[in-house]
Amino acid sequence: MIKANDPKLKSWVEVPANSDFSIQNIPFGIFKTDSLGPRAATAIGTQVLDLMVLEQNGYFEGLDLPENIFAQPTLNAFMELGKAKTRAVRNKISDLLEEGNTELKNNAEVLKEAFFEQSEVEMCMPIQVPNYTDFYSSEQHAFNVGTMFRGPENALMPNWKHIPVGYHGRASSIVVSGTDFHRPKGQTKADDADMPSFGPCRLLDFELEMGFITCKENPLGQPVSTAEADEYIFGFVLLNDWSARDIQKWEYVPLGPFLAKNFASHVSPWIVTMDALEPFTVTGPVQDPEVLPYLKYEGDKHFDVKLQVGIQPEGVEETVVSNSNFKYMYWNVKQQLAHHTVNGCNMQVGDLYGSGTISGPTKPEFGSMLEITWRGSEPVKMADGTERKFIQDGDTVIMRGHAEKDGVRVGFGEVTAKVLPAK
Amino acid sequence: MIKANDPKLKSWVEVPANSDFSIQNIPFGIFKTDSLGPRAATAIGTQVLDLMVLEQNGYFEGLDLPENIFAQPTLNAFMELGKAKTRAVRNKISDLLEEGNTELKNNAEVLKEAFFEQSEVEMCMPIQVPNYTDFYSSEQHAFNVGTMFRGPENALMPNWKHIPVGYHGRASSIVVSGTDFHRPKGQTKADDADMPSFGPCRLLDFELEMGFITCKENPLGQPVSTAEADEYIFGFVLLNDWSARDIQKWEYVPLGPFLAKNFASHVSPWIVTMDALEPFTVTGPVQDPEVLPYLKYEGDKHFDVKLQVGIQPEGVEETVVSNSNFKYMYWNVKQQLAHHTVNGCNMQVGDLYGSGTISGPTKPEFGSMLEITWRGSEPVKMADGTERKFIQDGDTVIMRGHAEKDGVRVGFGEVTAKVLPAK
Repeated sequence: MIKANDPKLKSWVEVPANSDFSIQNIPFGIFKTDSLGPRAATAIGTQVLDLMVLEQNGYFEGLDLPENIFAQPTLNAFMELGKAKTRAVRNKISDLLEEGNTELKNNAEVLKEAFFEQSEVEMCMPIQVPNYTDFYSSEQHAFNVGTMFRGPENALMPNWKHIPVGYHGRASSIVVSGTDFHRPKGQTKADDADMPSFGPCRLLDFELEMGFITCKENPLGQPVSTAEADEYIFGFVLLNDWSARDIQKWEYVPLGPFLAKNFASHVSPWIVTMDALEPFTVTGPVQDPEVLPYLKYEGDKHFDVKLQVGIQPEGVEETVVSNSNFKYMYWNVKQQLAHHTVNGCNMQVGDLYGSGTISGPTKPEFGSMLEITWRGSEPVKMADGTERKFIQDGDTVIMRGHAEKDGVRVGFGEVTAKVLPAK
Repeated sequence: MIKANDPKLKSWVEVPANSDFSIQNIPFGIFKTDSLGPRAATAIGTQVLDLMVLEQNGYFEGLDLPENIFAQPTLNAFMELGKAKTRAVRNKISDLLEEGNTELKNNAEVLKEAFFEQSEVEMCMPIQVPNYTDFYSSEQHAFNVGTMFRGPENALMPNWKHIPVGYHGRASSIVVSGTDFHRPKGQTKADDADMPSFGPCRLLDFELEMGFITCKENPLGQPVSTAEADEYIFGFVLLNDWSARDIQKWEYVPLGPFLAKNFASHVSPWIVTMDALEPFTVTGPVQDPEVLPYLKYEGDKHFDVKLQVGIQPEGVEETVVSNSNFKYMYWNVKQQLAHHTVNGCNMQVGDLYGSGTISGPTKPEFGSMLEITWRGSEPVKMADGTERKFIQDGDTVIMRGHAEKDGVRVGFGEVTAKVLPAK
């Protein structure tokens, strides 16, 4: 067991019941304040702990970290140190926060400088994303979408159970939770129209996803095997991969989604390490037909992470519209990475890989409005009595995720995004 | 007319007949040598001129450039200065090289330090590419491919004449001319097989493309109009967008090409500025049906750039297999950029945008082996008598491009790439 994962650990920092940020979590993020520039931090309870301040006060001595490694606007350089070193940092932070340890606890001066309430800081984009890939790895989601468009007999494409299907997304428009955005405009064509028309997207949808982030490069031409994948994966974020369904329908044949996807994708600010999620691994589904040898893997690499989506219309209470789980993946992250690199494609530090929409087997577990309302035919009610087929202007979509076991909770907090009217 | 484009200009540096690097070109690139680190340069005749040395010796004084702007491993920071400033730099270099100007010509010490034979230096990747988009904008290419798979009546998809169809490619695997690469492996499925199999790609193909590069960012949510596009486009490169046709066929439904494309894409080392290509603009095709208002444009933004592709088997003379032209585009770069941003997607400095395979109206002008050999049914002969349906191990593919008018030639040199056997 990784030391920092010990369920017996308790912190001298107060951690409220149901906090995502237990001492067993120790996620990494970037924050700033009105007076302080961006720097690396971890979260514990309701607070943010400034790692730059800890480093400047010698708390990481002996770990042989590069100078100012936490004084940077992203975590890329930190992640690039490799898993052995970043794991040692996480273990050290855990030590410092552990209830019997007084090194930091009794240093009033540093405490004052290093701790902030989460509500008082602004969380920044935690990584610079060189490349973004989005997979399509939830069987229920692929089945739902396929059923709507082709009927249940032909729902899954012939390649779906052989390939973790994926495509390249847009890196530039990946933004951090809380970044408002305008409803996209674009070309759409009604089935009964001769010509396309231009205007605001009418079928704006969220997609409930998780994303993983790589911390190691493979040279061009050198695949990463499923056995090697763990060394490449630093951690996970929640991902809302916004989709303009009507724009997608008209543009996506034959080269895939483009403007329907690249106007904004939101990630949660805290990267929960793969180490921290290790206690929550579960066995994935039996894969039948058998996969090709390069996609076979050992051990469990599915994660039991409870996921939730809520919609909050302007000035109205939130309504939960989905409760799903990251465990509902057909293809796991080892397989996704092995597939992505099997042709020699080179991964970079900070690359983001979306899971694809995560839908569970029953309707309350579906991960998009397209599925929840079955193309708008079964609208959902909001707290103010209004209905939603898709997402309306002024709506804030909130996604949450956490794992829980043996009294330990490790979570992501939220990724939220508010839709402003089209410009 | 931009000063540096004056066809009357002549240089005191010898420029051989048929050189791509006339004084009217002044492209930008990055080179290094055994003893010198990467730095910015221009090309003139057979030589490379070190811009870092010119800057250090005060030749750009008065242009208000940031210190060490040419002492960087990519051109991104230089391009980000904006077109007014980079145009001034190009004009200044032109001045210095003009036959009546002795400022540089008579400075023996600087000459010795600043000039290198192109054959003595190593050209580097000229830009760091944050995002790569590939369009599909040649009508003949789309028609050819569509005809092969669906017959001539249904060759073009219904959206093709309304949308400059594009998709996101992989930025990490874009490499500079001369970078050898291994034939990719991957999943393919024969039409008569029940199950897919795994192995080296059997239908490896080049795609003859041009790419443009942006030098300005638009904020997320703020489209760039066709009228504004010129200020965002710094210049062009040749692009060989390698394709594994058999891998693509099995993987690409429904989300587009992925591993069939992301193992390597090669660019030429010299960026020819859009300014330098201005004298070679031509009128594009009449677009019928009429395009939506956001895709309308004024002025000419098609370019008469002659393109050529040769295949050189190991130890054998090159055989030219295609002569095409960049003017054969249905959608131009203004339209591509306006479409890409109309939903608010944000462009970044250094982003690369492929034209899509450029095929002319007749067979000798087709831009891929898929089209030239019509899916392998009409192989082409090499100089040693062997035949090619697609590209074989040991083959080097060479692409060239240049514009010519009024006795002035402005070109790109070559983009070459050799295919090594699968690992």
